[in-house]
Amino acid sequence: MIAVLKETATEQQISNLVNWFESQGLKVNRSKGDFVTILGLIGDTTKIDIDLLRGLDIIDNVMRISEPFKKANRKFHPEDTVVDISGVKIGGGNFAVMAGPCSVENEEQIIETAKAVKAAGATLLRGGAYKPRTSPYDFQGLHEEGIKLLIKAREITGLPIVSEIMSPDQLSVFEDVDCLQVGARNMQNFDLLKAIGKTKKPVLLKRGLSATIKEWLMSAEYIMSEGNPNVILCERGIRTYETYTRNTFDVSAISALKELTHLPVVGDPSHATGKVSLIKPMAMAAVVSGADGLEIEVHNCPKKALSDAAQQLTPEQFVGVMKDIEKARSIL
Amino acid sequence: MIAVLKETATEQQISNLVNWFESQGLKVNRSKGDFVTILGLIGDTTKIDIDLLRGLDIIDNVMRISEPFKKANRKFHPEDTVVDISGVKIGGGNFAVMAGPCSVENEEQIIETAKAVKAAGATLLRGGAYKPRTSPYDFQGLHEEGIKLLIKAREITGLPIVSEIMSPDQLSVFEDVDCLQVGARNMQNFDLLKAIGKTKKPVLLKRGLSATIKEWLMSAEYIMSEGNPNVILCERGIRTYETYTRNTFDVSAISALKELTHLPVVGDPSHATGKVSLIKPMAMAAVVSGADGLEIEVHNCPKKALSDAAQQLTPEQFVGVMKDIEKARSIL
Amino acid sequence: MIAVLKETATEQQISNLVNWFESQGLKVNRSKGDFVTILGLIGDTTKIDIDLLRGLDIIDNVMRISEPFKKANRKFHPEDTVVDISGVKIGGGNFAVMAGPCSVENEEQIIETAKAVKAAGATLLRGGAYKPRTSPYDFQGLHEEGIKLLIKAREITGLPIVSEIMSPDQLSVFEDVDCLQVGARNMQNFDLLKAIGKTKKPVLLKRGLSATIKEWLMSAEYIMSEGNPNVILCERGIRTYETYTRNTFDVSAISALKELTHLPVVGDPSHATGKVSLIKPMAMAAVVSGADGLEIEVHNCPKKALSDAAQQLTPEQFVGVMKDIEKARSIL
Amino acid sequence: MIAVLKETATEQQISNLVNWFESQGLKVNRSKGDFVTILGLIGDTTKIDIDLLRGLDIIDNVMRISEPFKKANRKFHPEDTVVDISGVKIGGGNFAVMAGPCSVENEEQIIETAKAVKAAGATLLRGGAYKPRTSPYDFQGLHEEGIKLLIKAREITGLPIVSEIMSPDQLSVFEDVDCLQVGARNMQNFDLLKAIGKTKKPVLLKRGLSATIKEWLMSAEYIMSEGNPNVILCERGIRTYETYTRNTFDVSAISALKELTHLPVVGDPSHATGKVSLIKPMAMAAVVSGADGLEIEVHNCPKKALSDAAQQLTPEQFVGVMKDIEKARSIL
Repeated sequence: MIAVLKETATEQQISNLVNWFESQGLKVNRSKGDFVTILGLIGDTTKIDIDLLRGLDIIDNVMRISEPFKKANRKFHPEDTVVDISGVKIGGGNFAVMAGPCSVENEEQIIETAKAVKAAGATLLRGGAYKPRTSPYDFQGLHEEGIKLLIKAREITGLPIVSEIMSPDQLSVFEDVDCLQVGARNMQNFDLLKAIGKTKKPVLLKRGLSATIKEWLMSAEYIMSEGNPNVILCERGIRTYETYTRNTFDVSAISALKELTHLPVVGDPSHATGKVSLIKPMAMAAVVSGADGLEIEVHNCPKKALSDAAQQLTPEQFVGVMKDIEKARSIL
Repeated sequence: MIAVLKETATEQQISNLVNWFESQGLKVNRSKGDFVTILGLIGDTTKIDIDLLRGLDIIDNVMRISEPFKKANRKFHPEDTVVDISGVKIGGGNFAVMAGPCSVENEEQIIETAKAVKAAGATLLRGGAYKPRTSPYDFQGLHEEGIKLLIKAREITGLPIVSEIMSPDQLSVFEDVDCLQVGARNMQNFDLLKAIGKTKKPVLLKRGLSATIKEWLMSAEYIMSEGNPNVILCERGIRTYETYTRNTFDVSAISALKELTHLPVVGDPSHATGKVSLIKPMAMAAVVSGADGLEIEVHNCPKKALSDAAQQLTPEQFVGVMKDIEKARSIL
Repeated sequence: MIAVLKETATEQQISNLVNWFESQGLKVNRSKGDFVTILGLIGDTTKIDIDLLRGLDIIDNVMRISEPFKKANRKFHPEDTVVDISGVKIGGGNFAVMAGPCSVENEEQIIETAKAVKAAGATLLRGGAYKPRTSPYDFQGLHEEGIKLLIKAREITGLPIVSEIMSPDQLSVFEDVDCLQVGARNMQNFDLLKAIGKTKKPVLLKRGLSATIKEWLMSAEYIMSEGNPNVILCERGIRTYETYTRNTFDVSAISALKELTHLPVVGDPSHATGKVSLIKPMAMAAVVSGADGLEIEVHNCPKKALSDAAQQLTPEQFVGVMKDIEKARSIL
Repeated sequence: MIAVLKETATEQQISNLVNWFESQGLKVNRSKGDFVTILGLIGDTTKIDIDLLRGLDIIDNVMRISEPFKKANRKFHPEDTVVDISGVKIGGGNFAVMAGPCSVENEEQIIETAKAVKAAGATLLRGGAYKPRTSPYDFQGLHEEGIKLLIKAREITGLPIVSEIMSPDQLSVFEDVDCLQVGARNMQNFDLLKAIGKTKKPVLLKRGLSATIKEWLMSAEYIMSEGNPNVILCERGIRTYETYTRNTFDVSAISALKELTHLPVVGDPSHATGKVSLIKPMAMAAVVSGADGLEIEVHNCPKKALSDAAQQLTPEQFVGVMKDIEKARSIL
């Protein structure tokens, strides 16, 4: 950690601060330039509250040097991690597509969709049983019943299932789910992360609405530091001022993560854009950015009316998207 | 709800969509302008997935008309709500200051700070026992021991206590805490909100890092819809591109909330700015914006060295801030 | 334009507002739902100040229905525009790569770089002569001398040149420049846009630091409405809270623009990311998102020392990037 | 300037980089910690392109130590600057209110409004003659005619006038305007800043839509470095994801600027919020944050209909706002 002191800091203030650092067990390397004093702190700085330091009047800036993520860091683990989701591998050259409806609605819907996405080449089935909705009055999912329907769809198609968990006390309900999804709104629900860390289940960790790449890696670290190494990161768009798309799909984060961490990285063009017409190009963009997989919403629409009006990602359209994903993969 | 259709929508597509809306139990009011068709949807639209609609190719825009927050809405509850925290009232003209350290560290620290903030005029004691830290390697708080020390400080000073809860399973530990705080990172931890909603405990709901005012009110609605009306909203700064301050303190949100909701609103200048020198003006700015209270971090620093270096908000400085808060209140 | 009135609006207030709209020459279509009154405004609403309306107490929301960009709109001009930059075509299936140094520094540098980028397959030479620097004390470019050196490089290599113009009074200096670049900071320098609109010169219009897609199209409209149809849009990353990359590269904006407008769209991965290692994947991501071209910074580094340390985009590395760009193009 | 090198940097790469820095005339102070090498650069670093350095593969982070603004810096000029606008002083304890319509529309409007705002206590008249509009089809202002009407209003009321300039070639038209306003969209129109810097005219420099405080100060520095010290900074809200208000009013920036610079700082609650009901609390919040003045839009509405519907800031309401501003000033 480096602390840059203001020019106005007095000798007395500086030595008080140095004493305090030393009382915290740190070695302090002090170097004085023309205008500025820099303190290099050596030792275990994890107990130092960086925000507290930044608030001090004599401090201009504080910078962590060593990256605070250890287990997720490619520096200490250069080879790619491969996560195995009940036989479907992701990472280290293994590419996986998770597809399915936003919410599990009924048996016919989830089974038909599961068959369709499998036929098109998806290797994992996604579907929401517990839905984090902005409003308490909106549909919250089928809960346990939804999980049972997903399991039924798995029995029929053989596709391992991915579903979102919202609270530690749901872990027993998710015992037979192959991959736990942690949603954007829970990326810093640290108690949930710790509880999942105590299992060995693969977990798809979505980026928070306005999380930095480093905060996101620290959330992966929460899971890993409890003993669960099976973390997959999922970029799903960040919140910006742009309103044309639902979020802004940060594909450069995918490329950056492939440098920073050995964990598999997945892109979710459906949530990122909120627009059917943008799913195909954004799926390809994620692939060429280095993604190890994709999560895509596919709607089976028994209601012909909406389907026709919507031109949303029907199973037929998904076939086309899968072809373009394959093309994009072919050039890497 | 209003759906604006694109000019390119065909008659067939439009009537398919109208049929689908009607199958969802809605009445559809269709009006055709020169370039555009507008569908007004009347009835219970809470089951309609607005994001799904926005993704449809024939749809230009969708807008909710009626505000989806009911219980928090001033329209349906014009008079101010007064929340009673073990005898300390907030809202409806009652102003309260919650002060104390970021984390409870030890008995001496919390009791000395409690005495000091009480002497300066604070009416509630805040202190963290469970700390949401970005890194799993950073200090996570004293947990149950921290709650016990807060209770001890309350016994000595009489100040009701406010502390952050991070998970539903901590509710039993917080049974004797006067006011539960839900942190920014958990503003959309809906399972936590629902669990708190089943109690009657006063709750201080902080704004999420990048939550809109309406999303924040919907989170209040989650608590209220479960039966707990004792919600206090706390503006603590939002995430922007500006790096000089830790967050950007959105005082206009305080004024806006006083129009939109009957719930008490509190400002937290400490977290919003991250700079000691800005706490005093920002506390005053919150007050003139209409805040019903303030949450301010006060550090008791037994380590003289850091205290001298830091010039942080010591009990002595807090006395000065309280005087300026009083001045600001005097002109309203 | 649609105005949604608040429930609290009185009959008297509504009819006053309707009268005012009618006095502005608009036809008003009034429809009353259960909770809300909606006014549909038909006619020329360009004189209505939408921000003024939004500020009115009785108004809940105002929405423009017809897109305010006409000349740039694909709806009214479905076929792709092809811009011809002194013989190099871009748009409508024609792909162009603009490469060269950030700043023109001296004759050797620009000519060597020009030769190198041409050899690698670039078809346009970029180089800054007038540099918009945050600080007045930073290097501002060689100005007229820089333009002369670019022209010399063009004479030798045959590559048409692209360079940034910062003020209308520089137009005479740029008379022999093939394509004018308008930088992000000047995207809403409307006097500059109008002046350029009066020429017929191709113009590369960069997206503003925090411009929405629609604002950007309106800036293109400024140029086009003055008579110059030769506008190329350039996505160069937007400002967000993420600090790992210099900006956040919004490739979904490229795909969105290909739907919304007939103008060519170019991506600039160099400025978007600020990191050499991310240029290759982001160039490919832009291509699969539908970009008609790329702008890439290539540094000729006579100072061997920096070149070795930097591993920046040297002419040699640019050859590799060009190969990957070709691969990405091959699958479209 | 400090450069932190990555752990992976080889000795050869480091010494190449050090050589390059030395060839740029800098002294390099190299310190090696356990994991990391830090280079402290001493000398004139203004020619070093910080973005170029950040892109280098061996570099982890680069930090400027000395603030790059010199003339605007309170450190080198501790006492407040007082700007004199044709006899009306602002800064150093002198408080000024600039009020008037968004656009000058006609003689009756501007003169009636000028009289009204003067009667209410405003000391400067603002009004737009050149309007930066997002759309080329929207009203662009009365131009020279607008300036003439402002001058007429000044003759009648004695209030010095403030109006927005958009291009250096308009300087002659603004010769008789007392204070030039540079709008948010032109905050980094460096040619305009330089041209204004060559005059001695007071200038009101608005913050850019997404400008950091430091970028804003650097724009002030552009004007000052050309010889014009009469710069007033105006906070007018920044662009965030929040849509309830037009922008997010960053009052903490006002307090921060009062520490960082000796220049006067003004708040503009009208543009910041876009909502009439928020003007009064936000005007007061700006005052207690340390603002030296306010800019407020006041509409004279001859069209009774709109006035009644709108409840916008009429001259009558402005009287109320001025009273609250006075109250807020009384407690400082």
